[in-house]
Amino acid sequence: MKEIIECVPNFSEGRDKEKIDYIIGAFDGVKNLVLLDHSSDPDHNRTVVTLVGDREGLRNGIKNLFERAVEKIDLNKHKGEHPRMGAVDVVPFVPIRNIDEEGCVEFSKEIGKMVADTFNIPVYLYESSATSPERQNLAKIRKGQFEGFFEKIKQKEWKPDFGPTEVHKTAGVVAIGARPFLIAFNVNLNTSDVTIAERIAKAIRFIGGGLRYVKAMGFALEDRGITQVSMNLTNFEKTPVFRVVELIRAEARRYGVNIIGCEVVGLIPAKALYDVAEFYLGLENFSHSQILEVRLEEKMTGD
Amino acid sequence: MKEIIECVPNFSEGRDKEKIDYIIGAFDGVKNLVLLDHSSDPDHNRTVVTLVGDREGLRNGIKNLFERAVEKIDLNKHKGEHPRMGAVDVVPFVPIRNIDEEGCVEFSKEIGKMVADTFNIPVYLYESSATSPERQNLAKIRKGQFEGFFEKIKQKEWKPDFGPTEVHKTAGVVAIGARPFLIAFNVNLNTSDVTIAERIAKAIRFIGGGLRYVKAMGFALEDRGITQVSMNLTNFEKTPVFRVVELIRAEARRYGVNIIGCEVVGLIPAKALYDVAEFYLGLENFSHSQILEVRLEEKMTGD
Repeated sequence: MKEIIECVPNFSEGRDKEKIDYIIGAFDGVKNLVLLDHSSDPDHNRTVVTLVGDREGLRNGIKNLFERAVEKIDLNKHKGEHPRMGAVDVVPFVPIRNIDEEGCVEFSKEIGKMVADTFNIPVYLYESSATSPERQNLAKIRKGQFEGFFEKIKQKEWKPDFGPTEVHKTAGVVAIGARPFLIAFNVNLNTSDVTIAERIAKAIRFIGGGLRYVKAMGFALEDRGITQVSMNLTNFEKTPVFRVVELIRAEARRYGVNIIGCEVVGLIPAKALYDVAEFYLGLENFSHSQILEVRLEEKMTGD
Repeated sequence: MKEIIECVPNFSEGRDKEKIDYIIGAFDGVKNLVLLDHSSDPDHNRTVVTLVGDREGLRNGIKNLFERAVEKIDLNKHKGEHPRMGAVDVVPFVPIRNIDEEGCVEFSKEIGKMVADTFNIPVYLYESSATSPERQNLAKIRKGQFEGFFEKIKQKEWKPDFGPTEVHKTAGVVAIGARPFLIAFNVNLNTSDVTIAERIAKAIRFIGGGLRYVKAMGFALEDRGITQVSMNLTNFEKTPVFRVVELIRAEARRYGVNIIGCEVVGLIPAKALYDVAEFYLGLENFSHSQILEVRLEEKMTGD
């Protein structure tokens, strides 16, 4: 595959193994599409899928997904802790290689139109694909959930971007959009005082005046007797991992506290780690084409 | 390709563009083989090729290379600054992915036998493939060069590992073997005093009592008014990049000198950079399968 897009669709079934397997089967044998991971949460009654593919593969895979989810999921009968508004609830596209954010925005609109036309489901474009500022934030779109949408959709400001202005009777509505890769990243501190982790989290996160693409919370890891700044890094190209870590290190110093270690939860793109290596080595005149695997990929895909 | 081996053959022609292009053409259209790079040095009268492939691709590519080099190169007429003993002078195999050093040793022996049988050229196994300690070092094997080998080959301790005990009249002899990836890596210092760079180089390199897989020299970069510790890191898995840099940092401190930056010359494997990132972040419980591109590769090749 020349271009690589990550797609992390969430669908509203996390309990019935038979249904889940059937829906996940939507991706079997689809060309230029790889199922990297999927995990179902019975409390949330929701399944998160990690796919990687090019446009062709995702076009076919996402169509199959809606087909099977619409067939099997009735939101009138769905209960779970996680807020939801659709059988397929949200479909984010993340640029990984040989496609940029703009390309993913365009692609998300194509998919949005396809979903609306094929399944008669109202589609809201969100994040980078949003057509108005209040639609950037998924939580704002989803407010009121499936049940509330029968009224919400009638409001002028909540007219869907594609599809009917009527909620699909069993499959609800869906949010589709492009967003940067999200890295779940934790920094562990050699203090058992959770207020220190909380203060550092407040200082470095966006809403507290900190780094733009950082969401952070302080937690106690009681079994280890330490604390943790737990984060979502929502744009590692603009707010890179090393800058976050060095800012936490500086803030921690104020309390006489040190960083013990860091954790990556789930997946991280290679580029985020290359950036870390480049920073700490202070590499001069370094091009990613000097990385053997990158060069090989470039040669094989003819860039 | 599931397994990836790097191969960096050197052949003894670096001046005649027509001949060089013809010989390089040996790799055109070979399945499972990618020509990453080649560079010819007229003073050395020698060409270095960087190939990447699996066993099948390299088997065919290396056979073609010998065919064309033997056809076009006559060492009796060859002059150049770089010592040489064969038309194809040396063929190192470097494990990159899904093959280890042992696998490359075995493969180098297969290729050695093929070259001896097909072209009637004496083959010496070197580096990790060497059959005796004095054959590990390429410089020791090559001593005396093409001209000297007509006598050297008669000595019992220089009997070839494969092929006749007679030098090929025009193509000489060849060294074939497995070795780890070699990273050319420089560390720049904010001092113009070259004796400091020289002293640091001496302290950290293997022959001076330093790190096992480091060769180092001190140089002045006169146009920048700084100095440099210039290195070959001959086994980055056992002597990783970050350990070398931190040792240089500590030694430099003694002279009140700081590291300005580092340079990678040529290619570096992704793993060497992942190791750097892991070290400086102090990553806990990190698996390379958490790197999106690595996971994708694993899924696509079915590991």
